[in-house]
Amino acid sequence: MAYHIPDDLLAALRAANHILCVSHVNADGDAYGSVLGMTHLLHRLGKRAVAAMPDPVIPDFTFLPGADAIIAPDAVADDYDLIVCLDMSSPDRMGAVFDPLRHAAIPLVVIDHHITNTHFGAANWVAASCAATSQMLVYLADALDTPPDPTIAACLLTGIVTDTLCFRTSNTTPEVLEAAMHLQRAGANLAAIVQRTLNRLPFSTLALWSQVLAGARLEEGVVWVTVSQTQLRAAGHADDDSRLNSILASVNEADMSAVFTEKVNSQGAPAVECSFRAKPGFAVGDLAFQLGGGGHAPASGCTLDGTLDAVVARVIPMMIAARRAQATTEPRA
Amino acid sequence: MAYHIPDDLLAALRAANHILCVSHVNADGDAYGSVLGMTHLLHRLGKRAVAAMPDPVIPDFTFLPGADAIIAPDAVADDYDLIVCLDMSSPDRMGAVFDPLRHAAIPLVVIDHHITNTHFGAANWVAASCAATSQMLVYLADALDTPPDPTIAACLLTGIVTDTLCFRTSNTTPEVLEAAMHLQRAGANLAAIVQRTLNRLPFSTLALWSQVLAGARLEEGVVWVTVSQTQLRAAGHADDDSRLNSILASVNEADMSAVFTEKVNSQGAPAVECSFRAKPGFAVGDLAFQLGGGGHAPASGCTLDGTLDAVVARVIPMMIAARRAQATTEPRA
Repeated sequence: MAYHIPDDLLAALRAANHILCVSHVNADGDAYGSVLGMTHLLHRLGKRAVAAMPDPVIPDFTFLPGADAIIAPDAVADDYDLIVCLDMSSPDRMGAVFDPLRHAAIPLVVIDHHITNTHFGAANWVAASCAATSQMLVYLADALDTPPDPTIAACLLTGIVTDTLCFRTSNTTPEVLEAAMHLQRAGANLAAIVQRTLNRLPFSTLALWSQVLAGARLEEGVVWVTVSQTQLRAAGHADDDSRLNSILASVNEADMSAVFTEKVNSQGAPAVECSFRAKPGFAVGDLAFQLGGGGHAPASGCTLDGTLDAVVARVIPMMIAARRAQATTEPRA
Repeated sequence: MAYHIPDDLLAALRAANHILCVSHVNADGDAYGSVLGMTHLLHRLGKRAVAAMPDPVIPDFTFLPGADAIIAPDAVADDYDLIVCLDMSSPDRMGAVFDPLRHAAIPLVVIDHHITNTHFGAANWVAASCAATSQMLVYLADALDTPPDPTIAACLLTGIVTDTLCFRTSNTTPEVLEAAMHLQRAGANLAAIVQRTLNRLPFSTLALWSQVLAGARLEEGVVWVTVSQTQLRAAGHADDDSRLNSILASVNEADMSAVFTEKVNSQGAPAVECSFRAKPGFAVGDLAFQLGGGGHAPASGCTLDGTLDAVVARVIPMMIAARRAQATTEPRA
């Protein structure tokens, strides 16, 4: 498990005694897993540490040990001697947890696996070869001579499982399996984590998917669906578009997929959340970036103003063009 | 990777020079992965070895190295000095590959991970703690001082990935991840294998699922759907009920799930293929057994004569009763 962790980051962690751990807006399993895993790790080192998140904890992750102790932005103090920024490429992702004025004197350290990281900390450890920030914390625990206990292991394995869709993403290296194996041996229950995170679906989603899949479209290797507010209201919940897009992303005839979900923007005008996926050999990261969003080559997203019809009419030709360009250039790579 | 492999099995493999490797009827990824992995391993040991399967190779697995050299029952000879039976609990699973009269003088050795194995070989290695027979062959390769090459590794990792649904089943121990890690390091491409096996769906399945999910029913913790011949014909293919049942099995409100697929039996009369799943803590193995089928606690199946309506009316009350009994007794366990 050899990994180079910057000395200044290790020194900052060792020296600090009152530490705020924070992760990003629109949190996912790796955000929760890494922020809680880090907090528990610092506790085991005998330090005062608290986890803060910009948004309320989403119900899917309240099972994680320590989730009930996560504080909201209004409970964040200003007397920390270190802020650990986890799984985020830029400081704006901390939302209202971080106040540039109140927290100006407190050093930030960054632990992140996004290749787009802006290295905004006083010390930065960015490991783009890791599939999850939670994976990095396995190496950090090792470097700090603090083998994960079952609590830490459960948090970190949740981050790895959710960010890799249980080892199905193309960045699942042997090192990912090795880190997961260590966490299992440290007491994390892989099957229970899969059951609590990936294998969850409200019954009402089946009726929603039935309606949504009836409108699935396939054109030139791009498959997509739209989800309207009417459909979401009928299902009685906000659908997680990730699992729906996992289904589309496996369509044999397609290299790219998209889920377009109707929203209302902050001005009350129509908007559309776009979620993109690409098969190995294809990429949707640049597409989302051009549209003001972000993400990685295999999965990305953005939010656009406009109606479902207008957004689909704008985005699908871009996807088809991108796929065509990539299909042409790929053999030269 | 310590594992106890019976000495008589190792001795039989070392002594033999002309070997038939065989796996089971209704083959799955572990059947193909283990029979081909074993054959390649024997070739690397300098032996004559051939893989045979009772049924034609299904298209999903023709990508495996050596799949094109698998022989059918009518090409099986009678002059082997050893038959290696992989991933099967009893000799009838070899179908027409094994002829008790023609092959009477040839010793059988058994390598299998099913707890129900009848130990029908001259030497038997049954490891029920392994999630796949392909996992056992990782240890066998080690014991025979023949580290897997990329060809062997691809076959064995395919067996592990398909039998564990990519590490999601409850028998995915740290040893499973460790074996998979070794195979990745030996040259197997995990992401490509996931893409070729689990992440495949004809576009027409989306329309089929749309129709089928519209009829999803939930009663007392049991969720089910029916798939009619009319729906299958409209979709233009025989649906794989496994992925559909994976969706149902993740419904939060359910502990058991079923997919009922309309068929026609050999007499031309209506029949129904039933596929069952149970969440951790619940079991559907006995249910299928009572109905003349088979399987494990988390997944089982059977085929019953009758119309869709008649079979559903017969089976669902049994499932609800089984779930009720298990929900009652579980806390006492």
